[in-house]
Parts: sequence; structure tokens; C-alpha cells
Amino acid sequence: MTYITGFSKLSKDQKIEVVSSRFSNPTIVEEEFRSFHHPDEKLQSKFEEFSENTISNFFMPFSVAPNFMINDHMYMVPMVIEESSVVAAASKAAKFWKERGGFRAEVIDTEKIGQVHFEWKGEKSFLTENFEDLKIKFFEGTKQITANMERRGGGISRIELVDMTAKEPNYYQIKAYFQTVDSMGANFVNTCLEEFAKILKAYVAEKGHNEDDLYVIMSILSNFTPNCLVKVWVECPIEELGMIEGIAPQEFAEKFAKAIKIAHLDPYRAATHNKGIYNGVDSVVLATGNDFRAVEACGHTYASKDGNYKSLSDVSIENGIFNFSLTIPMALGVVGGLTNLHPIVKRSLEMLENPSAKELMMIAAAAGLANNFAAVKSLTTSGIQKGHMKMHLINILTSYNATEEEKAAAIRHFENEVVTFSSVREFLDDWRDKLIVQF
Amino acid sequence: MTYITGFSKLSKDQKIEVVSSRFSNPTIVEEEFRSFHHPDEKLQSKFEEFSENTISNFFMPFSVAPNFMINDHMYMVPMVIEESSVVAAASKAAKFWKERGGFRAEVIDTEKIGQVHFEWKGEKSFLTENFEDLKIKFFEGTKQITANMERRGGGISRIELVDMTAKEPNYYQIKAYFQTVDSMGANFVNTCLEEFAKILKAYVAEKGHNEDDLYVIMSILSNFTPNCLVKVWVECPIEELGMIEGIAPQEFAEKFAKAIKIAHLDPYRAATHNKGIYNGVDSVVLATGNDFRAVEACGHTYASKDGNYKSLSDVSIENGIFNFSLTIPMALGVVGGLTNLHPIVKRSLEMLENPSAKELMMIAAAAGLANNFAAVKSLTTSGIQKGHMKMHLINILTSYNATEEEKAAAIRHFENEVVTFSSVREFLDDWRDKLIVQF
Repeated sequence: MTYITGFSKLSKDQKIEVVSSRFSNPTIVEEEFRSFHHPDEKLQSKFEEFSENTISNFFMPFSVAPNFMINDHMYMVPMVIEESSVVAAASKAAKFWKERGGFRAEVIDTEKIGQVHFEWKGEKSFLTENFEDLKIKFFEGTKQITANMERRGGGISRIELVDMTAKEPNYYQIKAYFQTVDSMGANFVNTCLEEFAKILKAYVAEKGHNEDDLYVIMSILSNFTPNCLVKVWVECPIEELGMIEGIAPQEFAEKFAKAIKIAHLDPYRAATHNKGIYNGVDSVVLATGNDFRAVEACGHTYASKDGNYKSLSDVSIENGIFNFSLTIPMALGVVGGLTNLHPIVKRSLEMLENPSAKELMMIAAAAGLANNFAAVKSLTTSGIQKGHMKMHLINILTSYNATEEEKAAAIRHFENEVVTFSSVREFLDDWRDKLIVQF
Repeated sequence: MTYITGFSKLSKDQKIEVVSSRFSNPTIVEEEFRSFHHPDEKLQSKFEEFSENTISNFFMPFSVAPNFMINDHMYMVPMVIEESSVVAAASKAAKFWKERGGFRAEVIDTEKIGQVHFEWKGEKSFLTENFEDLKIKFFEGTKQITANMERRGGGISRIELVDMTAKEPNYYQIKAYFQTVDSMGANFVNTCLEEFAKILKAYVAEKGHNEDDLYVIMSILSNFTPNCLVKVWVECPIEELGMIEGIAPQEFAEKFAKAIKIAHLDPYRAATHNKGIYNGVDSVVLATGNDFRAVEACGHTYASKDGNYKSLSDVSIENGIFNFSLTIPMALGVVGGLTNLHPIVKRSLEMLENPSAKELMMIAAAAGLANNFAAVKSLTTSGIQKGHMKMHLINILTSYNATEEEKAAAIRHFENEVVTFSSVREFLDDWRDKLIVQF
């Protein structure tokens, strides 16, 4: 493949043409890319503005999990995920817990964080002694930016000086804490921080310091927001768990607790365990136009905060009560970003009755706990492959263009057989051979 | 909202109707959900099979970054991402490094991991003394499953007994290592592990042990695969970096290195830093039908492996050479899963000249390094908001249905003004007022 110059400057049509020309069958490929465009041209061009060099749309299935009872309120939860079984598992777990009181949830805090990272070669005392004065200037100098946020109930909560010189010579931070109400707040936080950096520079110069004494390295929000935290839990008397895949309630509860304990002890298990939580969380994050990379980075950093990467969920069995909980940080928004631009995101939020950011945190966390419950339940009872294999089988059958009749026969056949690409291929070949003989 | 029974059993049309009926304008909503269906019904039903309770498609922009030179080979890289600026940043960084020798990449290993977690109440010596014998049975008992994988060059590499009793009484693991060639391997690994658990149970019974001595808790792959690892780097003599946003090469290199060092020292910075890496990685992961939750869980666990969550990328400045590298674990597949089912995923792989899983690891890692370079470069020079704000401004203008003329005027106006929803609203109101006066 050769170097392409000026690609970003081309029109969309030209881009599609250039890209398609690289394929062995350009006309078919071009048509295919276009077949995924939305029929409404104006809407289509909106999707293209979300990113750059856009030539088509990537379809992800848009699903709903209909019965999530959270704090006694019933939600229909939109989920966007390419992995099979996630929505089914969430729905089943939601139904199971709906019959046992539903999910309880509370937002512990919604604090966002940002940092100005800088070097200071002057006396430390200059910073510490003047910091109260500086803070006043930080607040004053950002009034124009914060006015609107303050009207909505947010703003800058507090500003600290952090001395990092024990780790790196001359290295300090201005660490600021924000409330951003219903927005995720990235632009707000970053704009404030860049202003702080300017104010700091001006202040130092004003006080007659050498220009070289201060060196601002960067100003940026942190995606690690341990105090933007939601807790969600389910609980019931152990006997109300009922028989689960032939396992009695007490044994199930204890086995389940062992599985959770393992996810606290062993990072190899914890990573997979938390991955299952994010299957649920990210489905809601995507459907509501939020940023799953931010949510993942935040949660996994939180999972490692005590020095040993571990499970985000926890279980207790006390006085005959089974309690399963998830405490997870995440910075979500219901205004700004894609929420005003993507029509399906708007519908997702409407489906959730236009929640506040706090409510959305509870819903996404509940989806995470639901998927975690479903996964650990499967793992500790029937095993994960039973359900997965049926989906896997259907996918393989689809890739071989199997008919509905062939699919039904294959599902019967593979009830107790190992599903692999070759075993399904063999089964289909046999089946089709037999059909030929019959005719 | 009320409880819905039997939702999963409804036809797709019925599901759309039930969901739409919850909105204030059911007919419009129903039409809208349908407007996102693919015109080819057969293809549409394929998308619906990827997940459950599917009622529509969620559009993500499908983009390309045209000029990624990796190991002297030029790739056009498909990217799927809802966040603006990611594709533009990747493209710019790819172009910058293409002119300086491009990306170098190597796959260090592709080892996958799975575990059978169990309790053993008998003597430890029974397990240790019989483990060689057991291993033979594990290999023999999974021959049917591994045959096809072995033909492709993979299989079970080795199997270990792990004594976890220091952390939890009676807790052991069978830890197995696999090579899964061009597939991600989840189904293969899980099927082998569940077979190991059965073999272990049978073995213990056969040796006359009490049934209660062995208690298998769960059998499952690990998403944490520290030895499924790829390294990618760029390098050039410092002076060849050129002037960057008015900063001389030597100063830029040193400032950049300070920013990377901070991401090694402070988890608050590291989370955001790595998030930027995953902007690039996940864009490729999504476009090629891989599982971003698995990739994220793996990488962030790896980032915390030394007890302090830190940057995945690193920089060195030695003998006048600037070297920027990323070492990142990820388990990707180019066969199985969505790769055979999703038409755009197939095109993505074709666009990458149908890479092996190893090649795809290098490409996704290069996208991660490109985005990381672009982010740290912006942060340490012009600041992140300059570029972001332009995108943010365009998004706000779009949400207010601004015309092309209004957009152009707004971009000029906000060159040095703070972009907020209210400032844009005000600008547009003023602009439109003036127009009315003119007419």
C-alpha cells in the first residue's frame, strides 16, 4: 500500500472512492460502505462529524433489558454491545433480583479531579505561603467559565497544592476538585485548569520571580475519580435464593462467596471478573453516549488502588442474609458530548426517563452488578460454556449460511457435543449429504 | 414504568412496538428505530443475532487513518470511535512518524491463560505427587478439542499446579497456558478448562478419595495475559523532531519525557494517560470485531502489576536519540467471533490485508502509541483544549442546527474566546438577530 497525501481534505465521496479502490472489488465495496449510511442525508452527515475521515457507519446492536428495578423504580435499560449473551444475562439477573426486592443504589459522591503539573525551582515556601492568595486568583480568574456551571449547582469545590518533590525534584501539582452536575465535565475541567496555569505564570512574574523558576508541564483532568463513586447492591435471605441449577441456596451462597473471594486474591481472576462487570456497565455507557475508555481507566485504576488489583464487587453472608454489592467510580454525563447529537443516544436517555448523571451512574452500575451476578452464577453452577456454546454454535451456523432447519437440528445434535468450527462443519456436511441422498 | 413479561420471546417487530409504546410519541420513535435498520433484511437479521432483545442498530462512525507505516509496511487503519479528534490525532501522529522511519513493532509472545479454581481438603502431597500423571490425562482427555488448534500450530503449552493455600485454606489452581494462533481463543480455552475439571474429579474418585475432598469452584480463562504482549516504538535523532508548536526539539523531547515520567509516578495522571492509549487501541479493536472490555481489563491490570498503577508507554533520550515505546498485552483474534459475521469487520480486516493475530496486535498497539504521542504532544505544547475546543464548538453548533455560514463565523469568533454552551448560544443569538436586522 502506498502513501496517501491530503486524505483528510477530500470530500466524503472521494474518501470512500480512495478507500474502496484499495480493495480487489472496488465497486462492490463502495456500494457496501454506502449501504450502511442512514437514508436521511442530513442525519448521516451528523454521524460523520462525530469523528474524522469517516466513510461509513459501524453497526452495533441496540438492545434493551426491560426489567431493571432500582430503588423501587422500574427501568427499561438500553444496552449497546457486540458480545452475545451480555444482554440476555443482564435481563435474567434483573428479573431474578426484581423478584427479590430489586437493586438498591446510592451515589456516594460525584467529585471530578484535575491537575496542573509543574516544576518550581524557587523556594517551596513561596508556593505554600502564597497559595491562599493564589487560590483566590484561581477562583476569580475562572469566574467567566464557572458562572454557568455554578448556576446549575456545580463549580470548583476546592484547590490544593501537592508537593511531589519526594518523588521527583521540583515537581508540584495544583490539584483541583470539581462538581460538574449532569455533564461529564471534561471540557469544563480542562478549561479551568489551563486558566489556572496562566494565572500561576502571571502571579509568579508579578511577584518578581525569575521566569525560569516556573515550568508548567501540562494541565489536564484526571480520569481517575475515586470520589465519583456509586454503590449498588442486591440482598435477600439465603433461602430465598432458591435452588440454582440443582444447587441448594446455602451451598450456592457459599460457593458464590468463594468465587468472589478468589477475585479479591488473584489478579488473574480479578481482571476477568471485572471484565464481566464492564460488559454490563459499558453497554449502558455506549448506549447513552458516554466514553467507555474513561470509565474503564477509572474503574481499573480504582481496582488497583490498594496495591493489588482486585474485584470491584463484594459479597457478605451474615445473619442468613446474602448481600452482593458493587462499588465503582465512574464519571458520566447526560448533557454535552454525544447526548445532544446522536439520535439513538437521545432515545436511550428518554427510555431511562431522562435521568440525572447520578441516576445514570446507578443504572450503569446496576447493569454491571447484574452481569457480574450472572457470570459468577454460571461459573459456579453449570459452567460458562453451556450458555456460551449455544451462542457460539449459532454464530458458526450463521457463518456457514445454515437454514433455520439446519440450525434447529444442530442445536439438538450439539446438546452434549463439543462445538468447534470443524465439528459444526462436519455436522453440516453430513446433514446436507443426507438431504441429497433423500431427494 | 411497569414490569414486562415474556419480552425476550416476542418477535423483533413486537419488541420495537412494546419499547416504542413507552415513549410519548410511539409512531415517530418506532419509525426512527426502524430507520437505522439495514435495507438488506437478511443482513439486518444477522446484526440482531449478535446480541439479544435487539431492536435497532447503534451507529458508530467508521473512519480510516490512512498512513500508518509499521515495520516499513504502509497500512490504512480502520477506526471505530465515538470521540472526536481521536482519528485526526492518530492520523497526524502516523504522518509525523512516517516521515521519521515509521513505527517498529514486535510481538513478544501470544500466551493465553486459563485456570481451574478448586479446593482440596486432602493432603497436598496427593496433588503434587500425582500431578505429572494428571497432566498426561489432561492432555489426553482434551485431544478431541485440541486437534484442530494443533493443526493450526496452537494448543495447550503447559499446565501447572498452583498452591494458593497461603492466601486461602485448601485453595489451589490448575493454571494452563495456551497458544490459540489467529483466534482470541476464549471458547477453546474455556472448553479445555471445563474438561480438566471433569478429569480432575474423575481422577480423584478413581484414586479412592472421598468425594468431598475436592470441590471445583470454577473453570475460566483469564483476561489478564501478561505474556500475550506486543511492543511498538518510534525513534529518531532529537533534532529531527523539528520545531513543535514553537518549541525547539531538545526542549520538546525533555518536556515530553517529564510528562511520561509523571504518568509513571502518579496514578491520577497514569489513568488518563493510558486512557489516551486506549482511544487508539480500542478504535482498532472495535473495527476488527474484537472485545474491548477484555483488552482494557488486560492492559490496566498489567499497568498495576508492580503495585503502583502506571503508564504503559515509556520514553528514553539517550545519545541524542528520542525513543518512545509502548509495551502492552492484548489477546486479539482475526478468526472466530464477529470476524466472520460482521460485514464491516470483514472489510476492516481486508483493509489491513487480512493480518494474522500478531500483525493485528502490532497495528492496534501502533494506533495506541500514535494517540498517546499526539495527546502528550498537545498537552506539553499548545494544551489539549485548543484542538478539543474546536471540535466541541462544532458539536455545539450542530446541536443548535447552525448553518455552514454560522459555523464558519463561529469558528472565527471563538479563535480566542472560551467555548461554552451559553457563549455559543449567545453568539448564535446575536448573529441571527443581526441577520434579521439586515433583511
